[in-house]
Amino acid sequence: MTSGADALDQLRAALGDRVDTSAASLAAARADKSGHAASGLPLAVVHARSIDDVQQTLRIAASTGTPVVTRGAGTGLAGGANAGDGEISLSVRGMDRVLEVRPDDLLAVVEPGVLNADLNTALAPYGLWWAPDPASRAISTVGGNIATGAGGLLCAKYGVVRDAVLGVDLVLADGRLLRLGHRTVKGVTGLDLTSLVIGSEGTLGVVVGATLKLRRLVPGEVCTIAATFPDVRTAAEASSAVTASGAQPAIMELMDAASLAAVHALLALEAPTPGAAQLTIQTDGPAAIAEADAIADVLRRAGGTAVVSHDREEGERLLAIRRSMHPAMESLGTALIEDVSVPRSALPAMFDEIARVEREHGVVIPTVAHAGDGNLHPNFIFEAEPDEFGVVEAPDDIWAAADDLFRAALRLGGTLTGEHGVGVLKRRWLADELGEDQWELQRQITRVFDPQGILNPGKVFAR
Amino acid sequence: MTSGADALDQLRAALGDRVDTSAASLAAARADKSGHAASGLPLAVVHARSIDDVQQTLRIAASTGTPVVTRGAGTGLAGGANAGDGEISLSVRGMDRVLEVRPDDLLAVVEPGVLNADLNTALAPYGLWWAPDPASRAISTVGGNIATGAGGLLCAKYGVVRDAVLGVDLVLADGRLLRLGHRTVKGVTGLDLTSLVIGSEGTLGVVVGATLKLRRLVPGEVCTIAATFPDVRTAAEASSAVTASGAQPAIMELMDAASLAAVHALLALEAPTPGAAQLTIQTDGPAAIAEADAIADVLRRAGGTAVVSHDREEGERLLAIRRSMHPAMESLGTALIEDVSVPRSALPAMFDEIARVEREHGVVIPTVAHAGDGNLHPNFIFEAEPDEFGVVEAPDDIWAAADDLFRAALRLGGTLTGEHGVGVLKRRWLADELGEDQWELQRQITRVFDPQGILNPGKVFAR
Repeated sequence: MTSGADALDQLRAALGDRVDTSAASLAAARADKSGHAASGLPLAVVHARSIDDVQQTLRIAASTGTPVVTRGAGTGLAGGANAGDGEISLSVRGMDRVLEVRPDDLLAVVEPGVLNADLNTALAPYGLWWAPDPASRAISTVGGNIATGAGGLLCAKYGVVRDAVLGVDLVLADGRLLRLGHRTVKGVTGLDLTSLVIGSEGTLGVVVGATLKLRRLVPGEVCTIAATFPDVRTAAEASSAVTASGAQPAIMELMDAASLAAVHALLALEAPTPGAAQLTIQTDGPAAIAEADAIADVLRRAGGTAVVSHDREEGERLLAIRRSMHPAMESLGTALIEDVSVPRSALPAMFDEIARVEREHGVVIPTVAHAGDGNLHPNFIFEAEPDEFGVVEAPDDIWAAADDLFRAALRLGGTLTGEHGVGVLKRRWLADELGEDQWELQRQITRVFDPQGILNPGKVFAR
Repeated sequence: MTSGADALDQLRAALGDRVDTSAASLAAARADKSGHAASGLPLAVVHARSIDDVQQTLRIAASTGTPVVTRGAGTGLAGGANAGDGEISLSVRGMDRVLEVRPDDLLAVVEPGVLNADLNTALAPYGLWWAPDPASRAISTVGGNIATGAGGLLCAKYGVVRDAVLGVDLVLADGRLLRLGHRTVKGVTGLDLTSLVIGSEGTLGVVVGATLKLRRLVPGEVCTIAATFPDVRTAAEASSAVTASGAQPAIMELMDAASLAAVHALLALEAPTPGAAQLTIQTDGPAAIAEADAIADVLRRAGGTAVVSHDREEGERLLAIRRSMHPAMESLGTALIEDVSVPRSALPAMFDEIARVEREHGVVIPTVAHAGDGNLHPNFIFEAEPDEFGVVEAPDDIWAAADDLFRAALRLGGTLTGEHGVGVLKRRWLADELGEDQWELQRQITRVFDPQGILNPGKVFAR
């Protein structure tokens, strides 16, 4: 018997019908929302319902030397949760309970499979929310948000996942359970393994629970500013001017001309002025109106036309244009959604680099940016044939253009990935950013958690 | 020649008069502000002036197997920077430059030896500040703040060190230099080693530089509320009620009766009502006045008498009472300053436990708390003979009382140390909080950075 067949037999004996080998489930476990899919099919999808299920799976995996790829809702954009030949796809999507909400301590304890939006629905009656708001929040899990170190639109003001997690419960590669972190606001006992696990993309263990730091819903108005600029560089300079002015918008989203045109076409809106780029900015809290007026002044001085709305519904309608980016890109072809981040002052220069890459490589790269924090999502549009499962991977010339763009971001003091993670798709650039010494040190740290290397092999620290 | 003498010779050859073996310097390097002192005297104090000095020191230490204890201003409260027999005390206090301030990117790049207060003086002309505000900020270094994961008074609203550092430059045990982290707001490339280094107390490497996340100075009023309660439990319940009300004070400090009486005596103020405890609360930002009024209402409903001041100077005068805690304790005897943290809702129960420990152990434990984040500083007062260098260590009966108090904090869901660190003084309780498995895993991580175990041996992960 092969070790894979042995592992499968043991999993079935231990976990019964939570072990799923249906063709559809195996095919689905190969892919995420990145366009990448793993080679071959996983051994099985294990639908864990409890910490004990996860521990049993890991014990069997460890004893048989079988790789384990942890998966939430499969909305990743870097291939980090894709399971292939001979691997166990361990789904924690079914562990989706909110176990505890403590308004007095501003914390919640949750299982990893709860959707971000469902958690926030559960928190709303308490007047609370969990701030990380990836664009995928309606369909992505809190565990996945933790595994990737997700961000979102509100991060410049309200922080990323790393700022919003007090502790995680982690099952190690050998099945042992560790409780990392604290229930307290402050805590410096030993090394901060909670932060180490955030963004570790399944390489250190399986997150089976989390203690989350909550915020109170923000009282006061929400004001929305829609501002149009003759070109994307002027819009980027205007966003830098807003940051430099000391204003603290809750949201500041930039759309370049190609993005704006595609969304307008998708939504059957009047076509924008050719070349025009847009900033959509929201302010909130007790000083929202005064801040919005001050920001509008900055935008006008920076060469934009700005309209301020004090109506929440009108604001949501304006933001809907930004939120329609993904479907609009799909209407253009297949999109490789990238995720570089640069210091905010370098945003205009980064847009220059994107224009250069478009020119030199002959590709179209509609780009949106969380301009308040310098995080850009260039969308490389291409056409390619799907594989037998319908998965479409980016061709080499697109990756050559992406390579050029990544190196430009690093030259500007930026980073390869602001909020999507490394996964499979960016592993070959990881050492370029970290340096060889740090790459090797990080890889050795993963070996402390997982001496056999069975946790998500081939992801992040592989080349 | 012993390896120590060999190391000293090599250090002198490489670093000349930056190698200090004067009796006064060696004696000073044994101790910090905790009352603990290392056994014996270090080989030398190396006054590093550059990254290269640090690298040379580590290379010599690694090749000779000599332990290295990194030191900033020596204001630690857990013995983590104390160097003893056969060890090199590596001082980075002289590396105190602010290398870069970027108002547009809200970041600064600094050397580790700059004092927290000096940094903030340098940032003020830009309208910027670095939020971590340990009580020691006038005398403690940014590098030391990073090494301990320091907190302060403003943390509940403005965060701790971990929330305010984008990257660190770290010299490893073998002298190699790593650049960890980002200059960007978002960044999830690889493992978050920056967070791992924060609070690692010199066990992973020597912090030789840091990229700090800055805030803009907060506009608007500052309001201060002084509220008196008949007893400490009522005051603690009132502080929990403030948190539960949704108010977000910048500062919320609680002083128990013994603390209040000692400070009043020190400052020659009228004696407070026997048994009375005090909350001192500040609000800031555009809604400061409304928030202060709302908080005062909560406090009165909770059984306190509350006075609100809108005057910044009057506010500083009120806070000066809290800031006089350390000298007031010194007037009572020698103080072992402790640092447990509990969930905010558990503050009243923790004060009950402190009263129990006082009763059962026959000790006096004046206590102040950063009530906004649940971090308590119980001061165990005792009398003991100083050693030959004037260092006074806490006797066994004091540690027995502290042991009882630590276990009570853990039972309440709290942590051994909120902001001071583990150092020497709490290492024997570390595994009680982490569990054996996590303790061993953390120790193994330190070995990835420092295979020989020459970085701060005997601290944190030793028992």
